[in-house]
Amino acid sequence: MKVNGTPTRTIWPSADGQSVEIIDQTKLPFAFETVELDTVNEAAHAIFDMLVRGAPLIGATAAYGMALAMKTDPSDANMARAYKTLFEARPTAVNLRWAIDEMKSTLDPIAPEDRFARAMQRAAEICDEDVAICSAIGDHGKELIQVAYEKAGKSRAVNVLTHCNAGWLATVDWGTAIAPIYKAHDAGIPVHVWVDETRPRNQGASLTAWELYQHGVAHTVIADNAGGHLMQRGKVDMCIVGTDRTTSIGDVCNKIGTYLKALAAKDNNVPFYVALPGPTIDWTLKQGRDIPIEERDATEVTEMTGKDHAGKLHTVRVVSEGSRAANPAFDVTPNYLVSKLITERGVCEPSEEGLRSLYPEQAGAWDDK
Amino acid sequence: MKVNGTPTRTIWPSADGQSVEIIDQTKLPFAFETVELDTVNEAAHAIFDMLVRGAPLIGATAAYGMALAMKTDPSDANMARAYKTLFEARPTAVNLRWAIDEMKSTLDPIAPEDRFARAMQRAAEICDEDVAICSAIGDHGKELIQVAYEKAGKSRAVNVLTHCNAGWLATVDWGTAIAPIYKAHDAGIPVHVWVDETRPRNQGASLTAWELYQHGVAHTVIADNAGGHLMQRGKVDMCIVGTDRTTSIGDVCNKIGTYLKALAAKDNNVPFYVALPGPTIDWTLKQGRDIPIEERDATEVTEMTGKDHAGKLHTVRVVSEGSRAANPAFDVTPNYLVSKLITERGVCEPSEEGLRSLYPEQAGAWDDK
Repeated sequence: MKVNGTPTRTIWPSADGQSVEIIDQTKLPFAFETVELDTVNEAAHAIFDMLVRGAPLIGATAAYGMALAMKTDPSDANMARAYKTLFEARPTAVNLRWAIDEMKSTLDPIAPEDRFARAMQRAAEICDEDVAICSAIGDHGKELIQVAYEKAGKSRAVNVLTHCNAGWLATVDWGTAIAPIYKAHDAGIPVHVWVDETRPRNQGASLTAWELYQHGVAHTVIADNAGGHLMQRGKVDMCIVGTDRTTSIGDVCNKIGTYLKALAAKDNNVPFYVALPGPTIDWTLKQGRDIPIEERDATEVTEMTGKDHAGKLHTVRVVSEGSRAANPAFDVTPNYLVSKLITERGVCEPSEEGLRSLYPEQAGAWDDK
Repeated sequence: MKVNGTPTRTIWPSADGQSVEIIDQTKLPFAFETVELDTVNEAAHAIFDMLVRGAPLIGATAAYGMALAMKTDPSDANMARAYKTLFEARPTAVNLRWAIDEMKSTLDPIAPEDRFARAMQRAAEICDEDVAICSAIGDHGKELIQVAYEKAGKSRAVNVLTHCNAGWLATVDWGTAIAPIYKAHDAGIPVHVWVDETRPRNQGASLTAWELYQHGVAHTVIADNAGGHLMQRGKVDMCIVGTDRTTSIGDVCNKIGTYLKALAAKDNNVPFYVALPGPTIDWTLKQGRDIPIEERDATEVTEMTGKDHAGKLHTVRVVSEGSRAANPAFDVTPNYLVSKLITERGVCEPSEEGLRSLYPEQAGAWDDK
């Protein structure tokens, strides 16, 4: 999508084809800076330190990470090391696993001297495939917004609440949860987005707000606490969120706090949609409650970074001295709270049957349970 | 409760009896400072600017505000002006209304020259009554914690989740939601408190954490997003929250985000208790959805204040430039999500019948509906 009017992706090969460039998302919204990744370790750090975040972009970065490892040492042993390094950067990210598995199976049968070129090519294909997937999610989700617009008599903007950042910054382009919003906006359907700030890392206030502003979509940032009240008072037509991991029965693991919004949506008959690319689905897992939840550093809760009135950045402690903090990064929204899943292949029920209807080739995934 | 080992209240008359002193709670947790209020305007500003906050403490401050107005001009006209000034400082606070009504009816029949002395006396009585009420709430709530402790085989601390600050800083002493925790702690029952940071004003991270730390109660600060996940994983034995306003059928208006925690508690069979003093009940109102919700300044969402590593305070913008914010301050938790109400007269169902059983003298309140 656009940054200062220029179409931009979140990851792209450098001009000489020897490395890959990314947007340093930890600097947003205060500065727009790009970073060059030369090695698999740099790719892993970019994932771990969240210079890149969002399941699809993590997958794309991991794919390029495998490629970068092949540049200096294309041996099987180094491929195994690269796989391990990348996997451990973010063990709960299913796209990451998918991407490095895909790279490994592409590279395994190839002679070492051909691996780097093929790997860079395959990583670029993975990026293009992600763009196509997100665009398709956007097209399917746009229809749901269109229906809401017509239901409101085309008299006002459709109010969509979203949590965290599942916009184009979380993917290679378009986004997942925000793709339908961009598609609707670009098609002339008036949309207004309630942006959960998404504590503790504030990806909503810093990233989703930034990209919606850059693209010219109307939006309002709210505290994570506010969404339930807005739904009670009829100010939300639908929720659309992304997901880091979706189980084979449609349970959804997403940024901490997603579950609370899903509960409020259910209580107020507000449709709660989850947008996801096929590779996000973990066909090996049925129950969301079995997903291990990453506990991140407590300083993400106790400290915040922002810009003072003079334009200077500060990191400040906002929690009383002497008090400790806990920081679970994700929660699980059970499928009974999800209205529909929006995928690149269409919209389905959040159930084994629903997912089976769209991904029949995965039918075997259910047989052994 | 204790501050640096010294028993302290949140409001007290100055030594010469001509003014009143408060803790400037906007300075917490970074500094412990007291402020002297000399006039009704200073009292109103202390309420509006949230130097004092919490329904009971707002009531106590408003009572002293009426008294201060009588110091220089004890006329009926000035009493009416003072009433208006204080009422407009925080129109949604029912305790405020109750306190200024009480002061007015105490002072109306009295000769102007006697009004200041009587007003200071009555305001002090209102404070003492509040302490007695909160202490009784604590005693009744402590029994619920005792039961949970026994249910867990006395093998571990009881985990209580609370939202915002309904501790002693929100009252004159003891608190409402935290009073049961102090009573349990002081009685030797091990308690651990999950403290919602409570965006956008962070009263949990700054005030609740501060007062629990000062009193030596084990606690962990969490993002507001985390509570649902903790309940799903069995890490919360009960929620106890306060309320700014309770309707005659037990709907509860409290800090924004309370409703989301109540939904999660219901979904996970975690008891959700609301602690409230009798004067918080609005007997004239039945449906919580009819309560007007205060919209506060958007900068409370877009900016945060904290201390950098060098100990210097900064206010920083945390929301992307160009994006606007909305800031509803309260939400309504419908009575079907509340397990029990904890009052100074005991524990009851959140219903007309429940409240009637504890406050039979208010029976007339229901007759005209």
